[in-house]
Amino acid sequence: MQNFSFHNPVRIEFGKDKEQNIGEYMADFGAKKALILYGSERVKNNGLYDVVIKSLSQKGIEFTAVGGIKSNPVLSKVNEAIKVAKEFGADSVLAVGGGSVLDSAKAVAAGACYDGDVWDFFTGKQPTKALKIFDIITLAATGSEMNKGGVVTNENTKQKYAIDAPCLYPKVSIINPKLQATVTPEYLVYSASDVIAHSIEAYFTATSHCDLVKMQVEANIKSIIKTTEILLANPNDYDARAEFAWAATMALNGLTHVGVGGFNFPNHMIEHAMSAVVDCAHGAGLSVLMPAWMKWYKNRNLEQFERFAREIFGLKTADEGIEALKAWFEKINTHTNLKQVNIEGEVLEETIKVAVQNAKDWGMSELYTKEAITEIFNLAK
Amino acid sequence: MQNFSFHNPVRIEFGKDKEQNIGEYMADFGAKKALILYGSERVKNNGLYDVVIKSLSQKGIEFTAVGGIKSNPVLSKVNEAIKVAKEFGADSVLAVGGGSVLDSAKAVAAGACYDGDVWDFFTGKQPTKALKIFDIITLAATGSEMNKGGVVTNENTKQKYAIDAPCLYPKVSIINPKLQATVTPEYLVYSASDVIAHSIEAYFTATSHCDLVKMQVEANIKSIIKTTEILLANPNDYDARAEFAWAATMALNGLTHVGVGGFNFPNHMIEHAMSAVVDCAHGAGLSVLMPAWMKWYKNRNLEQFERFAREIFGLKTADEGIEALKAWFEKINTHTNLKQVNIEGEVLEETIKVAVQNAKDWGMSELYTKEAITEIFNLAK
Repeated sequence: MQNFSFHNPVRIEFGKDKEQNIGEYMADFGAKKALILYGSERVKNNGLYDVVIKSLSQKGIEFTAVGGIKSNPVLSKVNEAIKVAKEFGADSVLAVGGGSVLDSAKAVAAGACYDGDVWDFFTGKQPTKALKIFDIITLAATGSEMNKGGVVTNENTKQKYAIDAPCLYPKVSIINPKLQATVTPEYLVYSASDVIAHSIEAYFTATSHCDLVKMQVEANIKSIIKTTEILLANPNDYDARAEFAWAATMALNGLTHVGVGGFNFPNHMIEHAMSAVVDCAHGAGLSVLMPAWMKWYKNRNLEQFERFAREIFGLKTADEGIEALKAWFEKINTHTNLKQVNIEGEVLEETIKVAVQNAKDWGMSELYTKEAITEIFNLAK
Repeated sequence: MQNFSFHNPVRIEFGKDKEQNIGEYMADFGAKKALILYGSERVKNNGLYDVVIKSLSQKGIEFTAVGGIKSNPVLSKVNEAIKVAKEFGADSVLAVGGGSVLDSAKAVAAGACYDGDVWDFFTGKQPTKALKIFDIITLAATGSEMNKGGVVTNENTKQKYAIDAPCLYPKVSIINPKLQATVTPEYLVYSASDVIAHSIEAYFTATSHCDLVKMQVEANIKSIIKTTEILLANPNDYDARAEFAWAATMALNGLTHVGVGGFNFPNHMIEHAMSAVVDCAHGAGLSVLMPAWMKWYKNRNLEQFERFAREIFGLKTADEGIEALKAWFEKINTHTNLKQVNIEGEVLEETIKVAVQNAKDWGMSELYTKEAITEIFNLAK
């Protein structure tokens, strides 16, 4: 077990009706002027937006809003919102939506306290100051509600990169599973794929690892598999929705990375190229990629792949475990080959090119050469 | 899954040599005048105390110290230390030792900011202000390093009660497994028993529970069982020591209680009477009590006891699981009957009397009547 520091100061408010108290939670941290960020107009049509502004008004919190943030959120939108935040004099950002909205909010929070180009923070510079971040998370997937990272795509350069700094931990994250009950089956299975990807990256790539952390990762994966199936059959099963949401949060709040040596995020690194090029759902890209990457990588850590097969699926060999995961992805109806996400021919060539650049920028180009990335994509055809 | 709030702001600094930076960590939080608390003179003899004061001095942090805190820490000592803290004008308390030292430090931190009797905080009043708390934890057991509670015994009234408030979260806790390598086998197994007790209380008594949380509890227990056996054979196995320490921390940092309805701590409630009366090690009292309580309680939650048997020991029935736990306690050489902790005859009568009072004060007297408690003790003979 390696030395580590762990400090996750996010306050989680989990459960039914918690969004009604958002004004109170923000007032606890002295928020007075909030920029509300959201995605589609759905949050206005379903009443959530009204609940939010009523609660803010009750606590005397002024607000303005920027909507229209889309999946695979883009830098231009972040810049638009930074401008609004600065003009409004916001002291806080409230994300109402899924991981894309919250990730954008993190970038906006840092950018609003910075005179330069916010993209600097995605390419090496570390933000040290940010507006206070709050969120009501309506899609369980990214884990952004309990971590300090966010991902945004620079449309011009096709770079889908991350911002990551302690000042970007949300102050309070509201997770109300009921607000997540209207997620479509399509996005539910993409979310399941995303959480599994968060779970397996360090699990397979770490150079050292303790059994307790491995068991915690396995618990998250088993929980996601079980609750996804329940929710596909009955989207209104509250307990399953709640467990799914909590597993998503637990998968990327830092606890599954404590004491873990030398791990990295190869599936994310390569998938970011896919969704940057074809704008596919991140989870769909990941379910295409993971089984392929696993086949390619397995002999580097065979024992761990056998453990995965045994603990998750009750099987024996690494290959059986990989096939079982792919079969499960097929069963729940997420994508498992490149054609399904429109990556073929010239588009594939471009995706490989972007992935190769990602590998360089993420410091992973020694193992992930052009040949290696091509081989992985070939296994995903 | 019930609604919950989760907010654990403790910063964990885990690993080799971390204690050398204690001055820096305390300076991060503006500490200038520290009261150091410790137990036996061992920390002076083994050099740890010198490392600590050197680090504080390097950061210009003034200090004074109170030693002599013992296992099952007592109120008189806490009061002595509060007086010293007030006279010195301490802004922080640094616990160097095990759970008893840290629990005392929490009481001292609250008492030093209060004009009344600190025992008020153990009997209903909630502290809202405390000195900054830091610790170097030299025994993994209580989980106090990542929670907001502490337990102290009032020698006059034989009440072993808890203080618990958000202001009592440590700012930084240092967990260096190497500092825990000199723990005797005796205290190692008591610690194992304590962690298992923390794990099972909500696991068995909760009225609602999600599978993910259950799996996390089971992971902690499996980890403790495995690493205890490794450490009994080889006390210097660093990875096992580290995993044991982290499992102890994870078992009582709040994560295994999220969304869990209506649970309580019957084993702790009754054992506190035992160690208040005969001053036995808390973990020894718990290993005597747990199998007895489990036999008495099992039919109230049979399915969960069967799950315990299956998941922890690969067995089938509730009774098999309980017997396996008892057999494991015997195997590792902790106590499993009342005689071994000198609770017999009149002493048993007195212990029952104190436990009955505890049940009242803890709000658990409906189920834990004098008859029930007597029956549980009879099963522990």
